[in-house]
Amino acid sequence: MSRDYRERALAYHAEPRPGKIAIEVTKPCNSQDDLALAYTPGVAEPVREIARDPHNAFRYTAKGNLVAVITDGTAVLGLGNVGPLAGKPVMEGKGVLFKRFANIDVFDIEVDAPATEDFIDTVARIAPTFGGINLEDIAAPRCFEIERTLIERLNIPVFHDDQHGTAIIIAAGLLNALEIQGKSLPEADIVCVGAGAAGIASMDLLLALGADRKRILLVDRQGVIHSGREDLNPYKQAYAVETDRRSLADAMQGADVFIGVSGPDILSPEMLASMAARPIVFALSNPDPEIRPEVALEVRDDMIMATGRSDYPNQVNNVLGFPFIFRGTLDVHAREINQQMKIAAVAALCALTREPVHPDVLKAYNLDRLEFGPDYIIPKPLDPRLIDFVPPAIARAAVDSGAAREPYPSHYPEPPKIGVT
Amino acid sequence: MSRDYRERALAYHAEPRPGKIAIEVTKPCNSQDDLALAYTPGVAEPVREIARDPHNAFRYTAKGNLVAVITDGTAVLGLGNVGPLAGKPVMEGKGVLFKRFANIDVFDIEVDAPATEDFIDTVARIAPTFGGINLEDIAAPRCFEIERTLIERLNIPVFHDDQHGTAIIIAAGLLNALEIQGKSLPEADIVCVGAGAAGIASMDLLLALGADRKRILLVDRQGVIHSGREDLNPYKQAYAVETDRRSLADAMQGADVFIGVSGPDILSPEMLASMAARPIVFALSNPDPEIRPEVALEVRDDMIMATGRSDYPNQVNNVLGFPFIFRGTLDVHAREINQQMKIAAVAALCALTREPVHPDVLKAYNLDRLEFGPDYIIPKPLDPRLIDFVPPAIARAAVDSGAAREPYPSHYPEPPKIGVT
Repeated sequence: MSRDYRERALAYHAEPRPGKIAIEVTKPCNSQDDLALAYTPGVAEPVREIARDPHNAFRYTAKGNLVAVITDGTAVLGLGNVGPLAGKPVMEGKGVLFKRFANIDVFDIEVDAPATEDFIDTVARIAPTFGGINLEDIAAPRCFEIERTLIERLNIPVFHDDQHGTAIIIAAGLLNALEIQGKSLPEADIVCVGAGAAGIASMDLLLALGADRKRILLVDRQGVIHSGREDLNPYKQAYAVETDRRSLADAMQGADVFIGVSGPDILSPEMLASMAARPIVFALSNPDPEIRPEVALEVRDDMIMATGRSDYPNQVNNVLGFPFIFRGTLDVHAREINQQMKIAAVAALCALTREPVHPDVLKAYNLDRLEFGPDYIIPKPLDPRLIDFVPPAIARAAVDSGAAREPYPSHYPEPPKIGVT
Repeated sequence: MSRDYRERALAYHAEPRPGKIAIEVTKPCNSQDDLALAYTPGVAEPVREIARDPHNAFRYTAKGNLVAVITDGTAVLGLGNVGPLAGKPVMEGKGVLFKRFANIDVFDIEVDAPATEDFIDTVARIAPTFGGINLEDIAAPRCFEIERTLIERLNIPVFHDDQHGTAIIIAAGLLNALEIQGKSLPEADIVCVGAGAAGIASMDLLLALGADRKRILLVDRQGVIHSGREDLNPYKQAYAVETDRRSLADAMQGADVFIGVSGPDILSPEMLASMAARPIVFALSNPDPEIRPEVALEVRDDMIMATGRSDYPNQVNNVLGFPFIFRGTLDVHAREINQQMKIAAVAALCALTREPVHPDVLKAYNLDRLEFGPDYIIPKPLDPRLIDFVPPAIARAAVDSGAAREPYPSHYPEPPKIGVT
């Protein structure tokens, strides 16, 4: 990062006042009468109503539109275990995106609890405050147990975005890329490098969408995850296959799909050259991808490539998912974000990409044209139709799967009728 | 409460959207460039700066202006143990007051942790998020241990407003009332009914201001707290005196001061009649005071009376304290709100009352005139000068007592030079 950009980023956070968020009072509070309604004695009435029926909290408090973005600071961006406090700018930033894209209010909560059980207990105890919980930047494998336990304990949706948000965007992009390359998910040989939160969740979701477990090779720092390894946690173990491939180079031979959620420059031009015809390469390590697009394009011209960066085509960006997924979830008071809802989000993102491009998108990205194809396999974050596509799909799936406590919202459009490839 | 008022209070909370607060994004976030600064890659820079030096969190995040209003829902207003969720409208309301009066941002956090230790651990673990913690509506005696332990464990100020906020306003009003009545605190015989958070903390503060422990009679549901009782928690035990008085009626004989933080109508006209000449009666139970002012005025015309209600003179209202106390505390990054700072707040409130009334006050309360005297012993909540009086006094005391990490703010006026009677 250039010195200038660094200074700009720090100034953005510091001036004119520290941080990126503040509280806004949404009701009048100037006169003595206003204050009496907002606090005592008027506030006693909603208190009584909620004591009578807890669901009234959605009617009289901000709970129903309030999501907690919670971290322990163990896996912040690409920076690693910086601790909860240093994670705060990221969590505030996530709140900014929730607000900007889906008008959801976020309290960022930085939790100092090194023991997994303590972290879980802490989140569970503050849960009455919120309508939903977005776990963020928590290291694997701890993140899996944390999410599973909280989903079991709480009656509000709990969603670890680094897992499922990432998985949903990857899946949407991949389904579109496969379509363009004339391939199908069940017959695709997939190599995924990185067996943490994003890698495991992405493979889980691809399996649910029809991928063949036998055709997936998961690779961690020790190489291919195979049935002879004895150093595997249960989440990796689920992907241990019978194979004599050991290195990433072995794995890449003839592969149709590469998903990198690992680190910079681990994919060599030789490995790329050894992939099957018409390959798909998602090099998502940020800011430095597993292989630089300039290098990759010298090796292959039959490839579709995506990265995590905004300065190349096909940016895999979680902001396409989480604001809209929570919007739909909150609007039907869903008790969880289940598999059907995640798949509905994938389908909605696939479908939106295939729509004619919106003029606002061309303007925002300073483009002359953009159409479904190798350089446009996933929507752009500033596409104004995301809010019309994803929340309705989520809400419909929540209602159909029984997760919703409220009916499909009357102010929503019907979700586009779409099937996943 | 009338049916109409009840409907208005519920409508205020429900419409046009549920609750009273929302998040406001304080930095630009429209273009792709904005978003890159707010989130990745720009956000990595403040993360690195905070990882390097935790104090940079005050520079690059909202932490420095962010207070947690935290409850367990065990003692909500006069409604009792309604649970954390039903307490949410009150906590949001508290946040509204913090924002309205001192531009402090508040996350209200409702904690479901019946065991005291669990509550403490939960608050301690989420503390990195905040610049200060305001504990709220937690039952005694649990509240004392919770506050003490959190103050020890955390390096940000922790303040139980039901204790110290109330105590500060009571003390300020009482010092002014004593002055008007020609009495002095060290020689005043004081009866305090209610030995919970507010009662104990108020007596503690009066002792620090010079009250004579032997002249204080604390009264709980079992009657006068005396040295022969064996049912006392340690906080009450500290006020157990040698006396043969047993009932409230016994205690009231000849008393100079009555402080009621208990329940409606427990002070009879006969008890009031038995007080010393020129008595001071703080009947603070809300909404129904320990004795109704109409009834009291029939018995005594030499009395100064205060209540918790806005429709009588001399409203003892915590909003005179907490927003401004935290404003001054946050502005010097004080690590605690210590005794010197509390006393400084008392002195500032005393002094402000003695200033000529501000025209905005007359307008806000629809009054022709108002001057220091029996019907005006504490400032009015809508007095615009509170922000000029209390935070400077707090900041000065924080700097002088060594609690402040930053110097007295250059943009503050010098605090008024005032001594406490």
